[in-house]
Amino acid sequence: MAAGAAEARLAAAPDAAAVGRLLHRFNTEYDEPAPAPEWIGERACELIAAGATEVLLAGGGPDGILVVRYQPSIWSDGDEAYIAELYVVPEARRRGLGSALMEAALARCRERRCDHVFLGTDEGDADAHRLYERFGFSNRTGAELTYVYEREL
Amino acid sequence: MAAGAAEARLAAAPDAAAVGRLLHRFNTEYDEPAPAPEWIGERACELIAAGATEVLLAGGGPDGILVVRYQPSIWSDGDEAYIAELYVVPEARRRGLGSALMEAALARCRERRCDHVFLGTDEGDADAHRLYERFGFSNRTGAELTYVYEREL
Repeated sequence: MAAGAAEARLAAAPDAAAVGRLLHRFNTEYDEPAPAPEWIGERACELIAAGATEVLLAGGGPDGILVVRYQPSIWSDGDEAYIAELYVVPEARRRGLGSALMEAALARCRERRCDHVFLGTDEGDADAHRLYERFGFSNRTGAELTYVYEREL
Repeated sequence: MAAGAAEARLAAAPDAAAVGRLLHRFNTEYDEPAPAPEWIGERACELIAAGATEVLLAGGGPDGILVVRYQPSIWSDGDEAYIAELYVVPEARRRGLGSALMEAALARCRERRCDHVFLGTDEGDADAHRLYERFGFSNRTGAELTYVYEREL
């Protein structure tokens, strides 16, 4: 990798504070409710320790975060992956952190023998769409768009 | 529940053949690849036994199936649910099986203390959209549609 190019690394227990800070800031920026940063960081590290969740960090702050959840596929004997969160703080955007996080996430998915990966995103987030499409994702089945439907309980 | 109204029930190991048959038929109808019915049924029962997957069946055949996957939320100490599959065979549609499956799935989600449930669906599947919206799901964040982006690995 060229000197200065962004790289991503797997988060572990010592990263709890950074993970909590970034995920809290993510939801705050988009006016979504979020628990306290400390709570989120501790929860994330519990999930990492349990084995079916990985968190990737990028940038010196760190300034970018990606959360991926794994589950066994019902259609194959591999796993499928769900990229649950992807966020780069505004002041660190357009430096390749999103690409570094996505490249590292896809590498981890392949190492874990996943055969499918998916995520949800808003219609208007053109930067994210470009990133996902550059990494081979599509929001269509044939000619049709694919929607996320969701609700709280 | 009124006599004759559709009801859904949780699948268990003795339902492996029915589960495999319905999921195989689902993918075959939509021209998606699928393993043999026997393989799918066995895999589904392994996942059910592992605890983070539930399968609901409805109709006498049974004729309808719903698969829900649970994972711990990173935003709360509850779980979140992903409705991975929902299918009713063509000859049993418009008899309330989809509603019975969705009602039972939401009841299970609440029993398991989930605070969020989501699924993906094609833009053109108006019957499915009506069903999800009737059960309180939305495919928008504010004014924006929410897309699924996905790829194979």
